[in-house]
Amino acid sequence: MHTLGAVLESVEAGTVTISCGFEEGLTQQHGLFHGGVVASLVDVACGYAALSVMPDDREVLTVEFKIHFLKPAKADRVVAVGRVIQAGRTLAICEGSVFDATRTRVLARMTATMMAVPARSEGLVQVKTLEGQACYLLTDAV
Amino acid sequence: MHTLGAVLESVEAGTVTISCGFEEGLTQQHGLFHGGVVASLVDVACGYAALSVMPDDREVLTVEFKIHFLKPAKADRVVAVGRVIQAGRTLAICEGSVFDATRTRVLARMTATMMAVPARSEGLVQVKTLEGQACYLLTDAV
Amino acid sequence: MHTLGAVLESVEAGTVTISCGFEEGLTQQHGLFHGGVVASLVDVACGYAALSVMPDDREVLTVEFKIHFLKPAKADRVVAVGRVIQAGRTLAICEGSVFDATRTRVLARMTATMMAVPARSEGLVQVKTLEGQACYLLTDAV
Amino acid sequence: MHTLGAVLESVEAGTVTISCGFEEGLTQQHGLFHGGVVASLVDVACGYAALSVMPDDREVLTVEFKIHFLKPAKADRVVAVGRVIQAGRTLAICEGSVFDATRTRVLARMTATMMAVPARSEGLVQVKTLEGQACYLLTDAV
Repeated sequence: MHTLGAVLESVEAGTVTISCGFEEGLTQQHGLFHGGVVASLVDVACGYAALSVMPDDREVLTVEFKIHFLKPAKADRVVAVGRVIQAGRTLAICEGSVFDATRTRVLARMTATMMAVPARSEGLVQVKTLEGQACYLLTDAV
Repeated sequence: MHTLGAVLESVEAGTVTISCGFEEGLTQQHGLFHGGVVASLVDVACGYAALSVMPDDREVLTVEFKIHFLKPAKADRVVAVGRVIQAGRTLAICEGSVFDATRTRVLARMTATMMAVPARSEGLVQVKTLEGQACYLLTDAV
Repeated sequence: MHTLGAVLESVEAGTVTISCGFEEGLTQQHGLFHGGVVASLVDVACGYAALSVMPDDREVLTVEFKIHFLKPAKADRVVAVGRVIQAGRTLAICEGSVFDATRTRVLARMTATMMAVPARSEGLVQVKTLEGQACYLLTDAV
Repeated sequence: MHTLGAVLESVEAGTVTISCGFEEGLTQQHGLFHGGVVASLVDVACGYAALSVMPDDREVLTVEFKIHFLKPAKADRVVAVGRVIQAGRTLAICEGSVFDATRTRVLARMTATMMAVPARSEGLVQVKTLEGQACYLLTDAV
């Protein structure tokens, strides 16, 4: 029913890359990714990156993020890279970048505070799905 | 094709309220709004609020926003209020809040820098649509 | 040796007000408070506010803050109010405002993530002093 | 009267490095730089970096910044690097880093929105001095 438009490109300890293809819809008329989709995508990349350095029984919650939109996301595919720049027992500070498909132009930059919480802590954990106009990630994958 | 799930509740000079109902989908399994949807909704409310104090021939671009997720968006409806706290010729600084349907619990808080740009400045203007899992705004309406 | 230029105006659970008078120096030539002093002052107000809702054996560390400078801090006295908007066991999310002496004009707005750490955790705790051009708080007071 | 503790290490188009030595005072008891000083220093570095890509008749105003404190600034000297990552006619988006003296440990990270304003626009321009506990920059130098 939902197309899996977002692809997990690579996972290293502390660095995660996701790409997200362009999907038909209202967006296509403009060829622009909506800012909310861009923000969600790099939020997920940062969340994954934080998760990659946490113990297995943890889930990750976004405490806050800030995003600068640098260039219009006029692309048929965007690539989001999330990277942990500082990790403690409770918090991971992450930086994220959104690139165009060629990875030469930086479209957006994020800094985020991620908090580790016990897994399956219902009500606290954000649903890390992107069921937006262009990107879908299955909840299970997160 | 796309359901208009987001409703423009009220527009005053400098303050805009949008609400967004809960829609079936993966989200429903959790009863949680995705953080990206919450961020998009209040970003749009802030953008509208900025627009409401700008001259008619302007459009509004989000330069940056920061969002704190305070409580899980476990609700069947959320309400986003965007408010201009400082406006100049070029920039509007906005604050946004996301509430549950009863408007008693603050779920998220945003601060944003919005920039006025000449209308129809292609390539610069963000598409202010929310075609996400729960919320839809028609581009024309923005 | 250092003048105590900053005054703790009021402390309630979750809300702290500090004011800071104008002191002669290079600043006086301009009659402006430096942005860094303004940021420090409201950071301290937010830190105190967080501390006011934490257990006694805790100290508070600023994880991050964002500050918008709304109006030039052209005043002979500024007032900073820090307020906790969400507190958990580990984190307190705070908002701060800086006003002119009459408390009618908002000069700056801050949002901050504060983390509770065990008291006397050397190396982690920020020194909450303001030994800047206009404001001084004794370390002991923090 | 005021020691010039901050040194302009290098200026390239879009990148400025400042370092700031440790000075006796309350700070020395802890060997920690106060967060406000760290924030001011990298704010100035980012402001300079923005200025370095602006026309000559411009001054730079900090619209907002966000700073993450990553490690305690336990050092006898810190180095702040400000870098423009996107510049338009009006705004420059900057990123800043604060390092220890060996430039191996990142102590803090900043993102900032800087606005170009006509030079000598009294009341708007921030005084870019650091007359704090450890760092001093002469106004003229800014």
